[in-house]
Amino acid sequence: MQKPSIPKGTRDFGPAQVARRQHIFNVIRRTFESFGYAPLETPTLENLSVLTGKYGDEGDQLLFKVLNSGDFAKEVTTADLEIGSKALLPKVAEKGLRYDLTVPFARYVAMNRGTLTFPFKRYQMQPVWRADRPQRGRYREFYQCDADVVGTDSLLCEAEIVLMMAQVLNGLGLHDFTIKINHRGVLRNIYQALNGEGRESDLFVAIDKLDKIGRDGVTRELLDRGFSEATIDTLFALLTTDGDYEEKLVRLLAGFVTAGVEPEGPRPGNGEETEDPQANYRGLTELATVRDLLTASGFKQFDRLEFDPTLARGLSYYTGCIFEVKINNVQMGSVSGGGRYDNLTGSFGLPGVSGVGFSFGVDRLYDCLEALDLFTVTAETPTRCLLTHFDVASGRAALPLLAQLRAAGIPSELYPDVSKLQKQFKYADAKGIPLVLVLGPEELAAGVVKIKIMKSGEEKVLPIGEVVTALTAE
Amino acid sequence: MQKPSIPKGTRDFGPAQVARRQHIFNVIRRTFESFGYAPLETPTLENLSVLTGKYGDEGDQLLFKVLNSGDFAKEVTTADLEIGSKALLPKVAEKGLRYDLTVPFARYVAMNRGTLTFPFKRYQMQPVWRADRPQRGRYREFYQCDADVVGTDSLLCEAEIVLMMAQVLNGLGLHDFTIKINHRGVLRNIYQALNGEGRESDLFVAIDKLDKIGRDGVTRELLDRGFSEATIDTLFALLTTDGDYEEKLVRLLAGFVTAGVEPEGPRPGNGEETEDPQANYRGLTELATVRDLLTASGFKQFDRLEFDPTLARGLSYYTGCIFEVKINNVQMGSVSGGGRYDNLTGSFGLPGVSGVGFSFGVDRLYDCLEALDLFTVTAETPTRCLLTHFDVASGRAALPLLAQLRAAGIPSELYPDVSKLQKQFKYADAKGIPLVLVLGPEELAAGVVKIKIMKSGEEKVLPIGEVVTALTAE
Repeated sequence: MQKPSIPKGTRDFGPAQVARRQHIFNVIRRTFESFGYAPLETPTLENLSVLTGKYGDEGDQLLFKVLNSGDFAKEVTTADLEIGSKALLPKVAEKGLRYDLTVPFARYVAMNRGTLTFPFKRYQMQPVWRADRPQRGRYREFYQCDADVVGTDSLLCEAEIVLMMAQVLNGLGLHDFTIKINHRGVLRNIYQALNGEGRESDLFVAIDKLDKIGRDGVTRELLDRGFSEATIDTLFALLTTDGDYEEKLVRLLAGFVTAGVEPEGPRPGNGEETEDPQANYRGLTELATVRDLLTASGFKQFDRLEFDPTLARGLSYYTGCIFEVKINNVQMGSVSGGGRYDNLTGSFGLPGVSGVGFSFGVDRLYDCLEALDLFTVTAETPTRCLLTHFDVASGRAALPLLAQLRAAGIPSELYPDVSKLQKQFKYADAKGIPLVLVLGPEELAAGVVKIKIMKSGEEKVLPIGEVVTALTAE
Repeated sequence: MQKPSIPKGTRDFGPAQVARRQHIFNVIRRTFESFGYAPLETPTLENLSVLTGKYGDEGDQLLFKVLNSGDFAKEVTTADLEIGSKALLPKVAEKGLRYDLTVPFARYVAMNRGTLTFPFKRYQMQPVWRADRPQRGRYREFYQCDADVVGTDSLLCEAEIVLMMAQVLNGLGLHDFTIKINHRGVLRNIYQALNGEGRESDLFVAIDKLDKIGRDGVTRELLDRGFSEATIDTLFALLTTDGDYEEKLVRLLAGFVTAGVEPEGPRPGNGEETEDPQANYRGLTELATVRDLLTASGFKQFDRLEFDPTLARGLSYYTGCIFEVKINNVQMGSVSGGGRYDNLTGSFGLPGVSGVGFSFGVDRLYDCLEALDLFTVTAETPTRCLLTHFDVASGRAALPLLAQLRAAGIPSELYPDVSKLQKQFKYADAKGIPLVLVLGPEELAAGVVKIKIMKSGEEKVLPIGEVVTALTAE
């Protein structure tokens, strides 16, 4: 006899949890679909040749690898064993578990390049697996919900990402959020304004921490990394977070012009160089266009959209706008993020496919909704009506009503065993079933049903023929 | 540059396929929920200690095992290597992929015995993995949709399984189906009627093949296995498939009485022994009760419910009613099956939990619907309206209408790039978008939109303010 358990970092989801998670998925799915994103599902198992080398050395370590089936050790030699796991791995495992949704998407696009119509807008909501050390809010199996569009440079896609982020969060009742937006071009221009002193990546890694370690912390880190005090002063003059979206654009533009930063011009296919210098700094002009497209789309929540020139996001493949979303007043990392990339499918032999995408972390959204007590589902069952009875005969007599309730779309069940009424009520109470219908011999004789509303304790008696109509109308 | 591929036996599901599969899942989910089954989700990864030994030797072979993370080979010795994979396995892998939904369910019930309210009705729709040799209709990753109730002996559960099977198939438009039902007690009584000659399992394995190899084939197999000709004659006299549900019950009862089979009496808690001999052969009386409960529930499709005394189903843990469903006029194995078991959770230290459950094979349902051309979804996108435009200005001018359409629940998109109208129409055509809205400079000046219905080619012009109402009404 074994005491059963589940692997660390994994979870069972009971009925109430699944119902709440489904609510989150439904809000996200409806939003993605209303913006014309089409669903894609890829296999859990991918070839390691597809996965390896896409997530950095750390990612390769965190990939779950699947043993080849059959006699997996047949090609392993004692020499391999002496070298260790590294030599064994390619001989015993050729498949791994999906690590994110972006690489499988890129693999899919590359494999189906001949039949797909571009722009291709897809969403994908599936679990991913990482052999990370489990801790609060970090699991080894968790869901991602991604939406990406590839094959277009249009900034409408960036604006619609903001619209979708806001629609999902509003739809979930998470109204107090902040969508941060920045642009890799702005970061590059800031680096150029500092005369290219120090390493670009050191600079971004440091300023990305401004939120956490403050100005003093960032200063210390940059000094350590060899940046001069004068450069650091210039940096903070550019970065001051005062002012709104527009004011920051203006201040940065002035800073770039003063520092003599060479404008890179608009992205190909996104307009022409103009005499307005702002239009020629790609990052600033694209951020301004996104704001204008949002205004034209009727977006009203500009107080929740923050242009944050310190936002860097770690992933190196971003090349344009980048996004990150936080729920305010909840201790929780970002619940969504994304950005534009220029070469998603290059490693699969299909270069030059530009796109932009973003992702929701369902587990974090769940935790936020729970922390803010915003879940309405508490029942451990979808059942709305429990039909109770006293004996075999009254149980049988309840079956036509049971069938009618279900046909009317009201999830219902008849307590399956002959038991004391008290036990049947206890069952309804434990499962959170809101309505209990009593069909005893008295009620049957009178052709009526007694309905008890569990929450209030209120009872009413209805003719059996009126029950379905009454409950449907509710 | 690598040419990307996916592991054999796995599949990508593109937009139209996902939409069709979602349709199947939705019909099944709605049905399960209307009968009061609550959703459960268990992890993809289970400990091998939970999985191993539950599916027979073949099953253990077909389990996908996951390499331990980190330095997985650190405990492997050259002695292990000489013995081979069997000795290596416990040292390199302690987790595996879910192989079915029944064992994880049993594990969940055993782990949560203290907090669950019984009867516990759960459904579960998740993928499972088997390292089977891939072939037509057999995949290495596929979905199962299970519903089980544990903690009650009530035959209402069996009757409701028939109701749910019929509701799902009718809901999918698969009206020409056959639900076969039998009872392990009937098989046991048949074996007893043959005076217990030969091995019971040999008998069931042989008659289970009656469908495939016919009476002659079964006769030959039973002779090979040492059954006498007289016994085989008695067998076929009992098994004749003529007659309806009731007639078969009567014929078998007479056969059992004649052969002097000792009745085992009703299942504890399911009535008392009576003077009616049929009531005391557990299998026959339970099958009669299920039929009566179906009648009382208003079930009308008795022509699609067949009592088949030859149905055996391989899985050994069944102890009561067993079910199997076929779609007629499609070359396809069973699309659903199940039965009652008495000791699901015994191997996890929780004995005596009786229950009954069944499962739908989504991939087979999909293939049946495709074979019968019953899918209505063909579009590669959820988008209903594509808004087209001529230049940056008309594209911007379309944004308020785009927002209104989406707010009205009509999935819509604006072609993101400035392109020739022909290219935009081609995009709509390739994706199967049913409506194209043209917002050119002329239309904008006149405050109207031209709507083209792609299927018919029909065009109409509407004032821009009336578009949403017109499309919502459709």
